[in-house]
Amino acid sequence: MSKGLTSRNTDYSQWYNELVSKADLAEHSSVRGCMVIKPYGYSIWEKMQSVLDQMFKDTGHSNAYFPLFIPKSYFSKEASHVDGFATECAVVTHYRLKNDGHGNIVVDENAKLEEELIVRPTSETIIWNTYKGWIQSYRDLPILVNQWANVVRWEMRTRLFLRTAEFLWQEGHTAHATAEEAIEETERMLDVYAQFAENWMALPVVRGKKTPNERFAGALDTYCIEALMQDGKALQAGTSHFLGQNFAKAFDVKFTNKEGKIDYVWATSWGVSTRLIGALIMAHSDDQGLVLPPKLAPIQVVIVPIYKNEEELNAISKIADQLSADLKKLGISVKYDDRDTQRPGFKFAEYEMKGVPVRVAIGGRDLENGTVEIARRDNGEKQTVTQVGLDTFINDLLADIQQNIYQKALKFRQENTRKADTYAEFKRLLDEAPGFISAHWDGTAETEQKIKEETKATIRCIPLNNQAEEGKCILTGKPSGQRVLFARAY
Amino acid sequence: MSKGLTSRNTDYSQWYNELVSKADLAEHSSVRGCMVIKPYGYSIWEKMQSVLDQMFKDTGHSNAYFPLFIPKSYFSKEASHVDGFATECAVVTHYRLKNDGHGNIVVDENAKLEEELIVRPTSETIIWNTYKGWIQSYRDLPILVNQWANVVRWEMRTRLFLRTAEFLWQEGHTAHATAEEAIEETERMLDVYAQFAENWMALPVVRGKKTPNERFAGALDTYCIEALMQDGKALQAGTSHFLGQNFAKAFDVKFTNKEGKIDYVWATSWGVSTRLIGALIMAHSDDQGLVLPPKLAPIQVVIVPIYKNEEELNAISKIADQLSADLKKLGISVKYDDRDTQRPGFKFAEYEMKGVPVRVAIGGRDLENGTVEIARRDNGEKQTVTQVGLDTFINDLLADIQQNIYQKALKFRQENTRKADTYAEFKRLLDEAPGFISAHWDGTAETEQKIKEETKATIRCIPLNNQAEEGKCILTGKPSGQRVLFARAY
Repeated sequence: MSKGLTSRNTDYSQWYNELVSKADLAEHSSVRGCMVIKPYGYSIWEKMQSVLDQMFKDTGHSNAYFPLFIPKSYFSKEASHVDGFATECAVVTHYRLKNDGHGNIVVDENAKLEEELIVRPTSETIIWNTYKGWIQSYRDLPILVNQWANVVRWEMRTRLFLRTAEFLWQEGHTAHATAEEAIEETERMLDVYAQFAENWMALPVVRGKKTPNERFAGALDTYCIEALMQDGKALQAGTSHFLGQNFAKAFDVKFTNKEGKIDYVWATSWGVSTRLIGALIMAHSDDQGLVLPPKLAPIQVVIVPIYKNEEELNAISKIADQLSADLKKLGISVKYDDRDTQRPGFKFAEYEMKGVPVRVAIGGRDLENGTVEIARRDNGEKQTVTQVGLDTFINDLLADIQQNIYQKALKFRQENTRKADTYAEFKRLLDEAPGFISAHWDGTAETEQKIKEETKATIRCIPLNNQAEEGKCILTGKPSGQRVLFARAY
Repeated sequence: MSKGLTSRNTDYSQWYNELVSKADLAEHSSVRGCMVIKPYGYSIWEKMQSVLDQMFKDTGHSNAYFPLFIPKSYFSKEASHVDGFATECAVVTHYRLKNDGHGNIVVDENAKLEEELIVRPTSETIIWNTYKGWIQSYRDLPILVNQWANVVRWEMRTRLFLRTAEFLWQEGHTAHATAEEAIEETERMLDVYAQFAENWMALPVVRGKKTPNERFAGALDTYCIEALMQDGKALQAGTSHFLGQNFAKAFDVKFTNKEGKIDYVWATSWGVSTRLIGALIMAHSDDQGLVLPPKLAPIQVVIVPIYKNEEELNAISKIADQLSADLKKLGISVKYDDRDTQRPGFKFAEYEMKGVPVRVAIGGRDLENGTVEIARRDNGEKQTVTQVGLDTFINDLLADIQQNIYQKALKFRQENTRKADTYAEFKRLLDEAPGFISAHWDGTAETEQKIKEETKATIRCIPLNNQAEEGKCILTGKPSGQRVLFARAY
């Protein structure tokens, strides 16, 4: 490890960028806006994928794969969809390069496509065009399909994991016989996302609905989970859309229902992306580096030997090997780092930066005493414990760390969720105590837009468990029946 | 199921297309050359991925992710590489669409890229451009990275799974301090592929080296595994390339070796793709549909109840539930199909088409006798067996089926690998008894090319375990020291 990180208080944004780099998670590629996800960062994504994939399968979904390219004309079929994505598309126009005779490789103008192809920014159009061939009757429904894929949205200002031109995600696309079933599915998948965020990422989230302004392009309703980062900015961590019959109408997907009548099919789509890695970092990590919830840590336990001679190393290695074997039996991933090219202090700093939840150090005195030294990454606490029953001890400790990280994030969110009853108070809080602000809003797009322009705060969601409360809109003073959740956001 | 398949003897190509469609594996999308991999087909790919991924990890590799787009100029840096891929590239030239004011969505000419981007046909160039930043010293080596990704090669004549414009694959890209180490890696990964083909896909393969003509664009040596399909055509099922220092030189990737000297880094790359699904189908399946080796079958056992009334169904369901639970404990995937909308005969045909290795039927007489009827998909044999110890019986049966499918394919390959000592005999065999032909070749690219032009047969490989044998080239009569393996190929 080179020098430490810029502290979060000094420059949160700089801290994030340095952390992503020093923890070996990702880097900018030489292709504008695209990132390279490095092996350690990718292994976190693999853990997320594997858990989410199982949750999708447990709720009846299967994976499939649809083309990367979407004919331009498909976009035009759903009006609001094209408005939402047309301005940030990668467009394929040719299918061949050639040598220009002077040693330069150039685009072959004779290989121009009749219709341009768009690199998918999302796959509703190509998938609903496909579903048309799969659906005739209610017996063909529901279709519960998910896709793991890369997508491209030509973002101008990019940030590793949070906003990149290309990113990895999953997109669920389901087809149903009734609106009720589709809404139920939309809510079910939001709940899957919320459970994943809370139980695996240790990230408390607010479940809510987006305002019409903030809906997905083509949706009748967009549900979301919103999380709070340590700098008080909100981050949308997942969305689940009720698409009504919009895409079925655009692609003429009809079916015969149980009553023998013809109707359009009802749709949902839902997705989470590599953005979750950004959320994970910004919610939990500290000035020493990454802090990972044990359930998503690629390495859960690292064992570092501290020895004066070969003999000590051999004795330590025996203990380490036994402990490793015991931990693996409990399904715990463990690394024994006996590299002789680095000193223990260097290793300690490295695993701290990489967020390994539990570090076990074994030295000469431990050999004498039958002990090891255990350090927790989440709060830095160290303790000397006996080697007897160490596997169970560590197993319990990992569960405790997972819980502690969640509680810490929950406490942070509670402390940084405030009510504002006037616009002045609202603006003051945004600057002085950033976080979620619960405030009254008159329900109009105009007011929402004006607040956004004046303060950069947006309505993150209307929480699902919202309570009715009479009040006045902070901007217009018009009557409001409930508070909504505002924040500045990533 | 609608009507059956065209038989292999009538029209092998038609049989294949119908099978891919009727077994619900994949379909052509409306985007030229791109396929939709349907859930059942994709679940076979998921099984393949999961096994291969573990094999890669067991040999020390980690996954990572690199950009979809490659700047055009990168291609030009490795001369033979650009020759190999330039004529079949999807080229991104613009990054925005707009409304032309008449309601048409058109490409925004103001959003033209300064440098065109190529959708990756393979990632050597972008990856070696990245590795440049990762490697300074021998301590940074080896780098053992794999990527699961989609790639695009603008093929004009496409065929589901076998040759499509977009396909899914994995590409390993490793960096080493010495040529020896890189060659060792190249051979290790070929062996991983061969073991996967033989032990999981039940597909016997010939391990060999490609001739210079058939090498990967940019490789010093291309190793391959070649399999024989039921129509006597060969199929390249995986390749592993020793790239020498070509890409390191093109992207200026140098390192300080142990002796303190500066040298270019040594490289390998290796990949298999969704093409393997095509190989799996064409090697084992029959006129009734798909035949899957149990180790890669998404559903290994299906249980179908045959009942006259509700009471019988309940009794059968109890047995089925118990059997399902017992099989799951053994890690066997099982489906109990108690749909009341379809008759048993329909279900039998469906699972036959989909290649489920073992079918268990339970009827009224079985209830009386404490038996079930078991049918094997691979050879169609049926037998009535006792319900006692059924889980173990089926477990053993699956192993036997896996073995039998492999042996059958091996026997087929042995019977269809022939020697030819004259060009006349060679041509006669190609037409009358297609398969592998082992023949002498004078070692020149000209001869290889001429044989290809005249017969459409190519040298599939020079087998790794080849024996020295004096002979004369079938075309030129010039001396040859060994036989090579010819075939017409997919």
